[in-house]
Amino acid sequence: MQLLCPEWLLSMDNSVNALKDHAVLIDGTLIAAVGLQSDLKQQYPNATKIILNNQVLMPGLINCHTHAGMTLLRGAADDMPLQDWLQKRIWPLEGKLADAEFVYDSTILACAEMIRGGTTFFNDMYFFPEQTARAATQMGIRVMASILSIEFPTRYGSGPDEYIEKGLAARDQYSGHSLVNWSVAPHAPYTVSDETFVRLGTLAQELDIPIHCHLHETASEVDNALKLNNQRPFERLNQLGLINEKFLAVHGVHLNEHELKIMAQQGCTLVHCPASNLKLASGIAPTAQALNLGVRVVIGTDGAASNNKLDLWEEGRIASLLAKGSSLNATIWPAAQLLKSLTCDAATALGFENKLGRIKPGFLADLITIEMNQQAHQAPALEIASRLAYSGGARDVVEVWINGQQVVSKQQFLGVTAELEADCMRKVGGLWQTRIEQLDLL
Amino acid sequence: MQLLCPEWLLSMDNSVNALKDHAVLIDGTLIAAVGLQSDLKQQYPNATKIILNNQVLMPGLINCHTHAGMTLLRGAADDMPLQDWLQKRIWPLEGKLADAEFVYDSTILACAEMIRGGTTFFNDMYFFPEQTARAATQMGIRVMASILSIEFPTRYGSGPDEYIEKGLAARDQYSGHSLVNWSVAPHAPYTVSDETFVRLGTLAQELDIPIHCHLHETASEVDNALKLNNQRPFERLNQLGLINEKFLAVHGVHLNEHELKIMAQQGCTLVHCPASNLKLASGIAPTAQALNLGVRVVIGTDGAASNNKLDLWEEGRIASLLAKGSSLNATIWPAAQLLKSLTCDAATALGFENKLGRIKPGFLADLITIEMNQQAHQAPALEIASRLAYSGGARDVVEVWINGQQVVSKQQFLGVTAELEADCMRKVGGLWQTRIEQLDLL
Repeated sequence: MQLLCPEWLLSMDNSVNALKDHAVLIDGTLIAAVGLQSDLKQQYPNATKIILNNQVLMPGLINCHTHAGMTLLRGAADDMPLQDWLQKRIWPLEGKLADAEFVYDSTILACAEMIRGGTTFFNDMYFFPEQTARAATQMGIRVMASILSIEFPTRYGSGPDEYIEKGLAARDQYSGHSLVNWSVAPHAPYTVSDETFVRLGTLAQELDIPIHCHLHETASEVDNALKLNNQRPFERLNQLGLINEKFLAVHGVHLNEHELKIMAQQGCTLVHCPASNLKLASGIAPTAQALNLGVRVVIGTDGAASNNKLDLWEEGRIASLLAKGSSLNATIWPAAQLLKSLTCDAATALGFENKLGRIKPGFLADLITIEMNQQAHQAPALEIASRLAYSGGARDVVEVWINGQQVVSKQQFLGVTAELEADCMRKVGGLWQTRIEQLDLL
Repeated sequence: MQLLCPEWLLSMDNSVNALKDHAVLIDGTLIAAVGLQSDLKQQYPNATKIILNNQVLMPGLINCHTHAGMTLLRGAADDMPLQDWLQKRIWPLEGKLADAEFVYDSTILACAEMIRGGTTFFNDMYFFPEQTARAATQMGIRVMASILSIEFPTRYGSGPDEYIEKGLAARDQYSGHSLVNWSVAPHAPYTVSDETFVRLGTLAQELDIPIHCHLHETASEVDNALKLNNQRPFERLNQLGLINEKFLAVHGVHLNEHELKIMAQQGCTLVHCPASNLKLASGIAPTAQALNLGVRVVIGTDGAASNNKLDLWEEGRIASLLAKGSSLNATIWPAAQLLKSLTCDAATALGFENKLGRIKPGFLADLITIEMNQQAHQAPALEIASRLAYSGGARDVVEVWINGQQVVSKQQFLGVTAELEADCMRKVGGLWQTRIEQLDLL
């Protein structure tokens, strides 16, 4: 048992006020108690006390959309419009490089960056999800890998039958592993047939897992669908019965008011990826409108090939600023609500409403601390939510626990994860950079 | 003499390609030579060799608009519309707090954050500019303080006569100090009379210094001017002869195509402050259009009361992403051009075209290094400009020289600056936080 005694506790449970003099007891993988330090020290005299001076303890952040397996393509396709980005760089590079080993090494890299920055759970969509799960479990981070499908063949498989079969096999392989969870992930309306959508929607209901799907990322996605079928992709998915509380609509840059209202009614989630949407010039998602209509809006980094960071602090700050600036309303998505989007709302979106995103007895112990008092960029010390949302960042994260296990201490990985990161960095600097450069595509 | 031997040299002179095997010789305050390491080691055997493994050496970043003297108001007014922000928080807080001591301590804090993040020169606008100059020179950072004017009385003075007199006296006090430079700073069209604009415009010509002015920050600024005078503020300033190559138009959120064309013709500068414009819901400046029309666009953080960071890496990344996303053009403001905006273009805007912003013999030695090979968030190591622009950040800055003097080594302040920062942090955590909280305005 570990008794964490931080300077401030930000439980995200009911209130976003930071509490002084509080402690959190970890027992195994769970939060066993939350209370006054004096009480818990007396009640649990044998627990290992961990004093966290000048730090705020809060739930780990949850990245609701990424492609960790693409991290080795960071910086390989900048300043390009989406179609060039895909056709001239990403698809050719993936075609030549993206095998199981590439996905594994990319994911180690992604996990290292995410964990150091305070992300303790990520919702992934990529080929070879068993490699995603393998890398994540080795690095000690919670993952939602995907039973992915797309209509055309890739290195990973020939089509929906094989993709779904392989996804289910990967799920079986990791069944019982406490860090590994699954979604179904139809890639996007323009790459997935009605039949496959229905099949995956049914699978999601049977397995009681989320549906993770790119939707309305670009104007041309919507325009092309209207030309082909006289129907907007959202309407099509709604008719197919996909738009429900299990559905995560990723991007949603071109959702209209009618569609946002349906999303709010149906309890489905908008996963906002502002940096990627801006960088690929897809546009600005209507998050202010979505929030005002009562849609659950959470945040994803998207992959490192289009961001190029996997940093939820910076992503969240951009999300909040962009919502204000594009809606001309400075009060939208305030600091405290942004922190909810990154923790408890994200947990709800992924089906973990009663297990993650808050510091509460019985919840899983995914916890981080952030240094608050030692650095000029965090001074003066006024309201904590504001400091976390608007002036803090990945570099301020000090300690990380996932599933009750301490993974990072004083900003350093512990044990085997430190070696995994170092080995991966050597391989990236040697083998992978050589392979990428030899392709002569950049 | 110091001979800096980095892994890569990004001189920003003509090309933005990083050079291997190059070295830079610092002699006193100047860059004395740039060339192959082998040659310079032979030519200057007595110079102190400084080996900078895994680091890129580049010109220090230049913050083209800030209010360092407001840094103690960081986080004191979040999620508020501009008028509430000003009237309910900032002006009352300034009225009670912003004396010379407040400006000095705020500026120490701002300099600490900026220098650590690789900013070596900042263009400031605030009251008590002699305190700005005092703090900056003590911290060892280059500053452009301002001979400010505003029509109404403040704690600093009674009106234009006194403001200008005090500004000129401060300039005299710091004359001959190599780190201190001056602009004239009429606050904004809605707070400064025609007479004062002309007076400061004339002064700028006489002293050969820049004119630093907020312009078209909000739609209501433009609308109110149209109601009052049937004239847009830009048109008014242009008629008064202010819109010339010395003029820095800060914000420019609501500049139209006609005005941007005049700015391009006249060679004046747009200082873009994206985070502040978004956070205060002022809108999104037309930077893509400005760049396409040939306007020089540079970047400022604005003050910590509206940002809440003084981080040019994050500010630059947001600027580039926002230009792409709002113009629906992913090719605008590419990585290499962004680095120019932060270095050589910024130097030109401030009148230092032939002294700063490039690594070139005869230029002032304001230099920084950035760690490029040790951390997961910077891997793989593909193109350097992309990594600096899109995945790097303040935390990666390792070494800083300003005016030939090393100020930061291995991310730590050297000598007296370390003590100044520590003293200031103690005072902020004690005296200032107490004073702010006692006002009970937050």
